[in-house]
Amino acid sequence: MKQSQYVHGYSDREAERLSDQAMTLADLLHDDTCFPPGSRVLEAGCGTGCQTCIVTSHSPGAEIVSVDISRTSLEMAQARLEDMGNPCHQFIGGDLFHLPFRESTFDHVFVCFVLEHLPDPVTALRALRGLLKPGGSITVIEGDHGSCYFHPETRKALAAWHCLIDIQAITGGNSLIGRQLYPLLETAGYENIHVSPRMVYSDHSKPEFEEGFVRKTIIPMVEGVRDQAIMAGMVTPGDFDEGIADLHVTASPEGSFCYTFFKGTAIIS
Amino acid sequence: MKQSQYVHGYSDREAERLSDQAMTLADLLHDDTCFPPGSRVLEAGCGTGCQTCIVTSHSPGAEIVSVDISRTSLEMAQARLEDMGNPCHQFIGGDLFHLPFRESTFDHVFVCFVLEHLPDPVTALRALRGLLKPGGSITVIEGDHGSCYFHPETRKALAAWHCLIDIQAITGGNSLIGRQLYPLLETAGYENIHVSPRMVYSDHSKPEFEEGFVRKTIIPMVEGVRDQAIMAGMVTPGDFDEGIADLHVTASPEGSFCYTFFKGTAIIS
Repeated sequence: MKQSQYVHGYSDREAERLSDQAMTLADLLHDDTCFPPGSRVLEAGCGTGCQTCIVTSHSPGAEIVSVDISRTSLEMAQARLEDMGNPCHQFIGGDLFHLPFRESTFDHVFVCFVLEHLPDPVTALRALRGLLKPGGSITVIEGDHGSCYFHPETRKALAAWHCLIDIQAITGGNSLIGRQLYPLLETAGYENIHVSPRMVYSDHSKPEFEEGFVRKTIIPMVEGVRDQAIMAGMVTPGDFDEGIADLHVTASPEGSFCYTFFKGTAIIS
Repeated sequence: MKQSQYVHGYSDREAERLSDQAMTLADLLHDDTCFPPGSRVLEAGCGTGCQTCIVTSHSPGAEIVSVDISRTSLEMAQARLEDMGNPCHQFIGGDLFHLPFRESTFDHVFVCFVLEHLPDPVTALRALRGLLKPGGSITVIEGDHGSCYFHPETRKALAAWHCLIDIQAITGGNSLIGRQLYPLLETAGYENIHVSPRMVYSDHSKPEFEEGFVRKTIIPMVEGVRDQAIMAGMVTPGDFDEGIADLHVTASPEGSFCYTFFKGTAIIS
């Protein structure tokens, strides 16, 4: 089982984008994420550690182990945790499907922006389930690119946005996964499933989202697939760049922008 | 200025659908709608009175006048208000763009599921602005059909759903208006604009929304354009009916459904 080829977090610019995203969305996504002191927590797929920092700061005293398949990402995550004065956080390299832990090792599992990159998320959720103690919980957060809409909705802005969805699909990911969390968790054998949407709505009265989300998170994410989309013949360079210019208008007085993340929690008996 | 030809509320089945919708969504849309005792309130475009009942029950002592262009709808609204023991509620027939009131007559204006049917919503908002006293407020609620997405997302379910959007567009309406409330209110000269999205998220843990929203509101609304869409050559009868069957799967253990309404409030100085 291999991860898809398109995974966020590998370039410097991408790392900065993910950091901006985490700062803007921290309250919306993580306000209710808190693991008790003494509990053993697995963060499966920590990437460059943006979410790790937030979750760690919300859960003083929890023993959190963060795992990722990429050594480069793990080093960035480790540096980030050291910067925030948390040098003892444990980082382990490994594949989500074959993690070096015994069954029933953890009280809680946390998975954020990871399932979207996996060709078989149910198998991943089942593997993680085996690592949980009876009564243990999982918390899963994913975006859903199909939840995105904006005004003005120009043809070229839509085309640029759809390049992102299509590139991720080609490379084995599923960017429409947020809405599927409930059935995925149920199929993987979890119980007491609760999924809540976390919608980002931006208009000109919300400069923090216009700037921090639309301009610094969404638009750079779309720009990140420019070369791949042009190489794949999905769009011409001119149309793509006009689409990006149009997306900037959605973060102006005449525009608005909507995107929804989904957060699922569940337990095993 | 004429209303679009496609307006909800004229058939018995449509009236029942709107009633189900109002009961399911009442909390989500109207929890924070409350006009003080003694204030003069205009409900512009009351239709068959589903929202009127809710707003009236939230605002005891307010003097609410409900206006609609359709005599049939007004009679149904009046009967509904009498049924709930509120026989003195005032109903007036009239066109939103030429209402029989003096300038600065009302403390508050309430507009729900109306702008989507108007070819020029900014002109309507300006006309209503003229009826408000200085410091008066407007409350606007609209859906946005482009905010709708679901799982499983089959081709035929999407096609049936898009028939609804396209029929409304052909008949002069704009079913993508929710996301535009902020720029519309600003263009019409309102101040202190605050728009909040109200998202309906349904999965199998939420039977009240699976039943009350997806099965009793959304699907009948799509079924309502079946004949028009087939006549217009948008879809074959077989494909449309399979699309409807697929939409039912979104309200089952393996599905989910999302739709967002937008509520805007603003004042004039």
